[in-house]
Amino acid sequence: MGKIGYDLAQVKAIAFDVDGVLSPSTIPLGADGVPCRMVNIKDGYALQHAVKHGLKIAIISGAKTEPVEIRFRALGVQDIFMGSKVKLPVFEQWLAKYDLSPAEVIFVGDDVPDIPVMEKAGLSVAPADACSEVKQIAGYVSPHDGGHGVAREVIEQVMKAHGTWMDDVHAFGW
Amino acid sequence: MGKIGYDLAQVKAIAFDVDGVLSPSTIPLGADGVPCRMVNIKDGYALQHAVKHGLKIAIISGAKTEPVEIRFRALGVQDIFMGSKVKLPVFEQWLAKYDLSPAEVIFVGDDVPDIPVMEKAGLSVAPADACSEVKQIAGYVSPHDGGHGVAREVIEQVMKAHGTWMDDVHAFGW
Amino acid sequence: MGKIGYDLAQVKAIAFDVDGVLSPSTIPLGADGVPCRMVNIKDGYALQHAVKHGLKIAIISGAKTEPVEIRFRALGVQDIFMGSKVKLPVFEQWLAKYDLSPAEVIFVGDDVPDIPVMEKAGLSVAPADACSEVKQIAGYVSPHDGGHGVAREVIEQVMKAHGTWMDDVHAFGW
Amino acid sequence: MGKIGYDLAQVKAIAFDVDGVLSPSTIPLGADGVPCRMVNIKDGYALQHAVKHGLKIAIISGAKTEPVEIRFRALGVQDIFMGSKVKLPVFEQWLAKYDLSPAEVIFVGDDVPDIPVMEKAGLSVAPADACSEVKQIAGYVSPHDGGHGVAREVIEQVMKAHGTWMDDVHAFGW
Repeated sequence: MGKIGYDLAQVKAIAFDVDGVLSPSTIPLGADGVPCRMVNIKDGYALQHAVKHGLKIAIISGAKTEPVEIRFRALGVQDIFMGSKVKLPVFEQWLAKYDLSPAEVIFVGDDVPDIPVMEKAGLSVAPADACSEVKQIAGYVSPHDGGHGVAREVIEQVMKAHGTWMDDVHAFGW
Repeated sequence: MGKIGYDLAQVKAIAFDVDGVLSPSTIPLGADGVPCRMVNIKDGYALQHAVKHGLKIAIISGAKTEPVEIRFRALGVQDIFMGSKVKLPVFEQWLAKYDLSPAEVIFVGDDVPDIPVMEKAGLSVAPADACSEVKQIAGYVSPHDGGHGVAREVIEQVMKAHGTWMDDVHAFGW
Repeated sequence: MGKIGYDLAQVKAIAFDVDGVLSPSTIPLGADGVPCRMVNIKDGYALQHAVKHGLKIAIISGAKTEPVEIRFRALGVQDIFMGSKVKLPVFEQWLAKYDLSPAEVIFVGDDVPDIPVMEKAGLSVAPADACSEVKQIAGYVSPHDGGHGVAREVIEQVMKAHGTWMDDVHAFGW
Repeated sequence: MGKIGYDLAQVKAIAFDVDGVLSPSTIPLGADGVPCRMVNIKDGYALQHAVKHGLKIAIISGAKTEPVEIRFRALGVQDIFMGSKVKLPVFEQWLAKYDLSPAEVIFVGDDVPDIPVMEKAGLSVAPADACSEVKQIAGYVSPHDGGHGVAREVIEQVMKAHGTWMDDVHAFGW
């Protein structure tokens, strides 16, 4: 884990792209010709733990697949925006919904369509295997590839800054 | 393979977490939105071989999925505790069931919810890709990632200490 | 990303093999005994972006599986030739269909059956894990393995040479 | 690719284990709790090419799953022995069926149950990630992991020794 150069104590909300961020870039095709996403269980632990401590979590994806919705809904993720072909308006509506300022929000993205949102968020994070244009503008580049712990790392650093990561109430169960 | 610094001759039982231990951290989502676990076949050989030689094997997982139960039941694993949101009471009941002292038991875990059990077991083992808090308290950190041979390594070292690994009766078949 | 030593401004069309190029070499078997292909989402972004800018894209595969057809059709790929046991005649008919000269066309292949087409195309590209005979004759060997971004790299370099990669109209959406 | 120190010109037949050899050690669980094997497409090309040139190919596996049978039957593999809990008698019957001497036969295996067959075959090969006992007795240890090209490498070296690898009749199609 690296060290994010941003005042994480002010962060109230984190939004994630799916493909290349919560799921790896290379994934199996289903029988219906739709790519079958993959998930990281350590990301999952961190997501449900963050929600229990009041962090707002969103998913903003250009794709639309039901297994992704079911999985992240089950972890308590509050806002799941699928089929967001253009992401910036969706992101801005989400900020307005909770009256969040950009400085209070992190966005994690990996590819060209994520760039407008990354430029808007207070802190933008890229996985190690993000495309070059995204890594150039990211505030922090994680040592983890997409789908392999980048979400876990971001949430863990935020919750450690908040002093909520290894709490007695929620940490040792799901 | 490293060398575990523990008197393995006294070990009578081994308990495993599933996600990040018997299965890798990053796995495909099923059509129902439930992550589809993965298994390592060399782990499987070691598990059924251990059971044939009288070792008690348990699985303690916060998740509950039928394919995992079927797989490990078929390998002869005696005690499979799924849906164990909080793991320590389950672990203690398992010890009581077989009248095991903590010193006779190994637990292999990878994430924060495993920590209370790791502190209780005589020897605690972490995969190479366990979270930092788990690796800090583990008695042994394996060179293998979760789902990629950590269970095999632990069982192999225990059975070599017992002199039962390459026996003539069971080793050369399943 | 390396630097392709070819005048990419003249490229009008790119053809891809599937196994070992758009999909990794090692993939799961389906319940029907047919290998289930995998895809790279960053490749997918590049493919649909290339089509929107008028590049001709083809897939020439010896195998024939419906999920592959559905996936790449959905991305806008114009010509999908499955079941092409011998590839050169298919490639030549495709050139004729659009009145393309070999110098205007790139082919990306990874194994022995791709060699006749690679010798015909103006530029031939091999993934990092292509077989040795293919890498020896390839005009460019990508640092990316098959299914892990080789298609993305080729398309990106072509579109950068055309000045269409980070355009305002299409780049920031799907 | 390394260089096998064995007179490959005399080789008439090759037998393969499945798990950890033709399929990787870590694989997904199916919904029925049965591990879903994975295959390497470059292995597949080599297998069907070898059969066309008269090499005898066998699969000897302790497991029994229909997708594996369908896949390798479709590639032309002549002898598929599934459910072979103890492998040596199966291997010896296969030798007898074709009147093969051990010196004419290669066996590729990765785990303890493969050892008796590896000691019998003229040449025994282990993938890079085979268990330590298998690697110690193997005549050749491949640089490739199980499921990631070890079968391809062995077949390719044998057919190059036979002068049949890049033939004009079969090599450039399937």
